[in-house]
Amino acid sequence: MADPIPKKPAKISTEPPRGMRDILPDEAELRDTTAETILGVYRRYGFRRIETPALENIQLLTRGEGGENEKLIFKVLKRGEKLDLAQATSEADLVDLGLRFDLTVPLARYYANNQARLPRPLKAVQIGPVWRAERPQKGRFRQFTQCDIDILGIRSEVAEIELILATTEALTALGLEDLTVRINDRRLLTALAAWCGFDPDRYDSAFITLDKWDKLDPTAIVEELGRAGHAPVAIQRMVQMFTKFDKGEGLEGVRQYVKDPDGAQAIDGLKRIIEAVRSASGRPIVWDETLVRGMSYYTGPIFEITSARFPSSIAGGGRYDRLIGNLLGHDVPATGFSIGFERVVAILMDRTGGIERRAKRVALVFDEATADLKPVLEEARALRAQGYDVSLELRAKRSGAQAASLREQGFDVRWFGAAVPPAGDQA
Amino acid sequence: MADPIPKKPAKISTEPPRGMRDILPDEAELRDTTAETILGVYRRYGFRRIETPALENIQLLTRGEGGENEKLIFKVLKRGEKLDLAQATSEADLVDLGLRFDLTVPLARYYANNQARLPRPLKAVQIGPVWRAERPQKGRFRQFTQCDIDILGIRSEVAEIELILATTEALTALGLEDLTVRINDRRLLTALAAWCGFDPDRYDSAFITLDKWDKLDPTAIVEELGRAGHAPVAIQRMVQMFTKFDKGEGLEGVRQYVKDPDGAQAIDGLKRIIEAVRSASGRPIVWDETLVRGMSYYTGPIFEITSARFPSSIAGGGRYDRLIGNLLGHDVPATGFSIGFERVVAILMDRTGGIERRAKRVALVFDEATADLKPVLEEARALRAQGYDVSLELRAKRSGAQAASLREQGFDVRWFGAAVPPAGDQA
Repeated sequence: MADPIPKKPAKISTEPPRGMRDILPDEAELRDTTAETILGVYRRYGFRRIETPALENIQLLTRGEGGENEKLIFKVLKRGEKLDLAQATSEADLVDLGLRFDLTVPLARYYANNQARLPRPLKAVQIGPVWRAERPQKGRFRQFTQCDIDILGIRSEVAEIELILATTEALTALGLEDLTVRINDRRLLTALAAWCGFDPDRYDSAFITLDKWDKLDPTAIVEELGRAGHAPVAIQRMVQMFTKFDKGEGLEGVRQYVKDPDGAQAIDGLKRIIEAVRSASGRPIVWDETLVRGMSYYTGPIFEITSARFPSSIAGGGRYDRLIGNLLGHDVPATGFSIGFERVVAILMDRTGGIERRAKRVALVFDEATADLKPVLEEARALRAQGYDVSLELRAKRSGAQAASLREQGFDVRWFGAAVPPAGDQA
Repeated sequence: MADPIPKKPAKISTEPPRGMRDILPDEAELRDTTAETILGVYRRYGFRRIETPALENIQLLTRGEGGENEKLIFKVLKRGEKLDLAQATSEADLVDLGLRFDLTVPLARYYANNQARLPRPLKAVQIGPVWRAERPQKGRFRQFTQCDIDILGIRSEVAEIELILATTEALTALGLEDLTVRINDRRLLTALAAWCGFDPDRYDSAFITLDKWDKLDPTAIVEELGRAGHAPVAIQRMVQMFTKFDKGEGLEGVRQYVKDPDGAQAIDGLKRIIEAVRSASGRPIVWDETLVRGMSYYTGPIFEITSARFPSSIAGGGRYDRLIGNLLGHDVPATGFSIGFERVVAILMDRTGGIERRAKRVALVFDEATADLKPVLEEARALRAQGYDVSLELRAKRSGAQAASLREQGFDVRWFGAAVPPAGDQA
């Protein structure tokens, strides 16, 4: 305790770990207000906040539902007697926990574990960090914040309608404009792939190429599908079909290709969602027949929000009726929407530089020699009571530079008592 | 992608990892408002939010500054080629990262890494989870939230005065009453131990016993110090001295025992802090001559806040002028105060059950058969515009139970359109 800490040479790195970052005050405050705005809108839609631990048992995280993300888990070493390095022959012998890579797998566990004490249906909102050991690259970090809403226990499209209305409203409240909702349905994609005659075991490979329809021309699509070994007849049918859609086939036009009841339900559902969102919000929502979305657990409507002003989507989600059933033993209908929190923060930082003036900020500069602190503390108290953020500051020797730095942080600088302002400043 | 997920038997545990927990909506919302209240007060005092990653390089976390906490680190396995299990002979070969066990060690790294871009002095507020692999016990968890404020770059007691005023105000804003600030100084403890004649290398051992002055009687104190092998003369002097303090010796009375300038400065500083906090806030603040506090890095004033209504302290902190210097190569004066966030939440949960009505909550119950959703969506929109939290709910078959459950969550239940209310309910 009273042992003085020995002075160590400063040879240790002070950088954060590779791919992670320190957040400076301007951005931290912007992140706070962004989160508060989003949570405020979701609360107004009746969503309830929930929280799960950052760590989960490694068995839960490696069941296949996380897809490629499971390869990116930060795994935690066993502790104490459980760790037997001499006997360990593989990684599995060494680890028992992992950091969550998303908020959906933990949500499924949370629901399975707590369902008796949770509202039914559960409308949940989560916000928190997730971790993925991806190769670091510009704008991509190994710890990042996700913000998800999920509705568990509602089979009706009413759930999707609420998710979409709430999320577009949250993004609008943040000042993001020109938002378009794109929507499709996994059951419809499956019905169309069946009509084309793709091998049912290889639909996903065909969908991966279809997802690039916007970026590639039809010849390139044909080539890519061919290289993947799909049947030429199926390829030809798909390209003809989707070229037709480009010319404005519309949702009713697609019925002719849909032979199964699931596909027909998907069309009815999409129409219901599109109509309700349009009439309630007046916002653009379009059927995007090439929207696929990555995760394997989606089972119904899938959707994302894009803005003409930004290249990639700002939010995405979909229905996953079987994920919770895999833990619980019986299916629970579920659908969720995730805001790309880091993308939104990056857009807002670009716009504002993060300068956010919650309240008027005052820096009360006073002299350390002030024997009686009462007057300056009282002045600070009075200003705070008037709604100011007040920082007490000791007058620095270089008070001109001090004042400049305080103003850069958004403070109105006031010189108190015996603290003489630098030339050009008023007491 | 389109691969259906094979149904797996539900044989996996859905519990959170050992010692960690799921947070249900009522508590999650209470935690949100608690954090917002605390952050709101700290912002009004001019503190700026900062954030560091949850993971740090293992070298940073194991330099000795974390004391016992370093034994409790969750360590992260190396990834990819860096992990060479066959060649690994010790734990150190296997891990490169660890989860932070507090917010102070990361703050020191953050300051060293970003000082050129940070305000000077830096008044920082952090709130976030930390992890310690402690033996799980009632009320103690392996992931818990800390909330710290720190002032870096101010040597004057003005920093302590601000920390104390801001923190008592934050706790008062949460509705905690009967708060007392207890304060002492490590330099004064050292001066007193010197006067008694303890071995300078073993002051900390004496302090550990002194810390129990409130709980043990003088005979037990003498015995414990004797068992620890301290000199009988030193033990006798200490017990005599502190028995005198019990009778109200007061800060001026202690000067006679203080032979070095650091100890004298400590007395002057304590008097300045006590006087300023009393005159500015009117709150009780007392010199507690037996206050020690655990961390080895403290160098000056140490303090905590207790309430007569709760057994253990609610907040604690102190000055640590050398911790940052150990990373940076030159000392940076620093002092911090940490609110026991989990303790505060537990107190508030006991009082309120977590039921927190931010806004009036309305559940609009309507029938799934409703062909046109526009009217119900418009009603919800209108209510939200009036400041209500509105949840759309599909009428359940057992609508009486549904209504009861919604009311338990704090919703006012309204039956919309064709949704017939159950007996006893009004549309």
